[in-house]
Amino acid sequence: MKPFRIEALSDGVFAIAITLLVLEIHVPTDGNLVVGLIRLWPSFLAYTISVLLIGLIWANHHSMFVHFKKVDRHLQFLNVLLLANIAFLPFPTSVLAQTISNNGDIRTATFFYGFSVFIGGIFFNLIWQYAIRQRSSLVNPGLPMDYMQKTGRRFLFGIITYPAMALLGLAAPYLAIVGYLVLIVYFWLPPRDESVVLHLQL
Amino acid sequence: MKPFRIEALSDGVFAIAITLLVLEIHVPTDGNLVVGLIRLWPSFLAYTISVLLIGLIWANHHSMFVHFKKVDRHLQFLNVLLLANIAFLPFPTSVLAQTISNNGDIRTATFFYGFSVFIGGIFFNLIWQYAIRQRSSLVNPGLPMDYMQKTGRRFLFGIITYPAMALLGLAAPYLAIVGYLVLIVYFWLPPRDESVVLHLQL
Amino acid sequence: MKPFRIEALSDGVFAIAITLLVLEIHVPTDGNLVVGLIRLWPSFLAYTISVLLIGLIWANHHSMFVHFKKVDRHLQFLNVLLLANIAFLPFPTSVLAQTISNNGDIRTATFFYGFSVFIGGIFFNLIWQYAIRQRSSLVNPGLPMDYMQKTGRRFLFGIITYPAMALLGLAAPYLAIVGYLVLIVYFWLPPRDESVVLHLQL
Amino acid sequence: MKPFRIEALSDGVFAIAITLLVLEIHVPTDGNLVVGLIRLWPSFLAYTISVLLIGLIWANHHSMFVHFKKVDRHLQFLNVLLLANIAFLPFPTSVLAQTISNNGDIRTATFFYGFSVFIGGIFFNLIWQYAIRQRSSLVNPGLPMDYMQKTGRRFLFGIITYPAMALLGLAAPYLAIVGYLVLIVYFWLPPRDESVVLHLQL
Repeated sequence: MKPFRIEALSDGVFAIAITLLVLEIHVPTDGNLVVGLIRLWPSFLAYTISVLLIGLIWANHHSMFVHFKKVDRHLQFLNVLLLANIAFLPFPTSVLAQTISNNGDIRTATFFYGFSVFIGGIFFNLIWQYAIRQRSSLVNPGLPMDYMQKTGRRFLFGIITYPAMALLGLAAPYLAIVGYLVLIVYFWLPPRDESVVLHLQL
Repeated sequence: MKPFRIEALSDGVFAIAITLLVLEIHVPTDGNLVVGLIRLWPSFLAYTISVLLIGLIWANHHSMFVHFKKVDRHLQFLNVLLLANIAFLPFPTSVLAQTISNNGDIRTATFFYGFSVFIGGIFFNLIWQYAIRQRSSLVNPGLPMDYMQKTGRRFLFGIITYPAMALLGLAAPYLAIVGYLVLIVYFWLPPRDESVVLHLQL
Repeated sequence: MKPFRIEALSDGVFAIAITLLVLEIHVPTDGNLVVGLIRLWPSFLAYTISVLLIGLIWANHHSMFVHFKKVDRHLQFLNVLLLANIAFLPFPTSVLAQTISNNGDIRTATFFYGFSVFIGGIFFNLIWQYAIRQRSSLVNPGLPMDYMQKTGRRFLFGIITYPAMALLGLAAPYLAIVGYLVLIVYFWLPPRDESVVLHLQL
Repeated sequence: MKPFRIEALSDGVFAIAITLLVLEIHVPTDGNLVVGLIRLWPSFLAYTISVLLIGLIWANHHSMFVHFKKVDRHLQFLNVLLLANIAFLPFPTSVLAQTISNNGDIRTATFFYGFSVFIGGIFFNLIWQYAIRQRSSLVNPGLPMDYMQKTGRRFLFGIITYPAMALLGLAAPYLAIVGYLVLIVYFWLPPRDESVVLHLQL
């Protein structure tokens, strides 16, 4: 299978996951509208974090797939697992927003959010590690092994930091939420390592 | 019509059907959040089965359309019937999840799920059988008739096994649910027949 | 603007409109599940009619846009009006299904359905008539004027028949619903006129 | 990153945002159906305004991206912020429609709508201003600086007029709603300046 069609399906899932997030935000129906809108801040915050996160995974997904010359059946399967996770993210986002709103069990909600992102990170890393192993048949020949391993370590960094935030969420949930935002913006920044930049820019 | 635009519409429907599945999972609102999330396991299970299933049909759909050089009006019609079925799948998924949650009529729900997949399988096979008949005008000339018939038999296998599971569901619903999962993972594996593999890899 | 990007947006809207239709079908929550599923037949019927209809408009939309070499700002505007109508269709579908279910005002619901399709037909015809007028700057030079006018008459036939069914719905709603189905399947069939076929096959 | 994949994600979000708007319109369940449908006029109006608006931003988004030869990480980030805003628009649309229906705080709803559009306008302008600064590495070499600045001023006009309407909404909400419609149709018209037209037509 040529990579472009797997990218088309993936782009669709990314786009819809981003857009479905808004369905969780309900119009305030009673009382003062100004107050009602302001009280929705947990929804707006959770919405922003999740859009930035899904956008980030999308950008990294592209950075990965641009190097593939072919996609085999196993890679398609791993990618569908990743998409299952992306399409699922509106749910923990909803849990987080509603729990903050209702002053509920924010620790569990924050942990659940980070845990969900962590699961996605595992699938993401499995795709790249599989590509490294099947390098000769799947990856563009010009791509140096050195770069693949460097990028792989960068991706692994993600699945260490998100569960760390999830665990932090059990103790200090609001700090963990700020931590998610900081992590996402940090990963959005272009990597400092010049050799990585070069290939990401492709 | 060139195949790429029918693929674009289809990819859109596949992507949205995958993503809409999450809308069925509702945030637990009362009681302990940890317990509430754990009690959602039927939704998580049904979600996972359906995402893997829709992803699988998508992968097979691509394996089919990559061999078409043209798509005529009848094929478009059959494809829209297939898409109608794909877009419908979130509903039997919902029925299954809610029935397990409420300890309802799981036999009917399991049967209904398998029956819905079976209907889609019929449309899927109609597309391929139609392509075999209109081979000279629709299919890439390089594709051997032998391969088309072998693949056709493999596709037919699907519409025998899913209704078998549906019927099993009337007697032993939980076994049937495991059966769906096993079937889906089995069909995800690359076919062992080398000549089929070759063309699927295209 | 190259036609392909307007097709990408349009394909997205068509795909989502098809898929959103399922959200209107609610899992029966009380009583016997078998009875509950059977009682949903109005939803299944309305779902089927609307998927076939949206699929048909999509196929005709492609038949139209394949002949454009460029899309100017006015055509984009007319196309967005058409998309607004397509994206709206899940609503009259819902009205129709729920009205039949609740034994409500089926005449109004049937009329409203046909009326909504009629409005979309007007935008559809405006696009093609505009293309005929701006032929030298928008349409592929190889396309004969004769074909454009023949196709235009065929498209006009649609906006005569749908409102006729809508009016029939005020008197005999169930007959009108059958009428919608017959019309949609009729328009799905390839046109008998050979010269039209040739270009539609492109 | 090649611009086409960022366009694919963006087209997806635009298409879904347009289509999700319809989910806000609920089937009237009690009383006379004719009256019920007529009473939904605020929803139909808000729906129309938002579809035209999102279609317009889509058309301008394309006018912008057609000139890019490459998209770097910062531009991707700004674009995701813009998409977050587009995907959010169904919410203020809902607020507006429901507030008019319930005869609620229309001033706040009108202001909130214009304010949301204004935030999107800021991200839109940031993308173009960033492209002007990184012109040598991101923009097609044939594009004159003069055109980029003229277009930039036209885009800036949008983020002045929408907040002006939002503020007007605090005093005369219905006038502001008409104002939104007039603005959107005005911006849909092709620009009068010939040199701008030329490049927009690309």
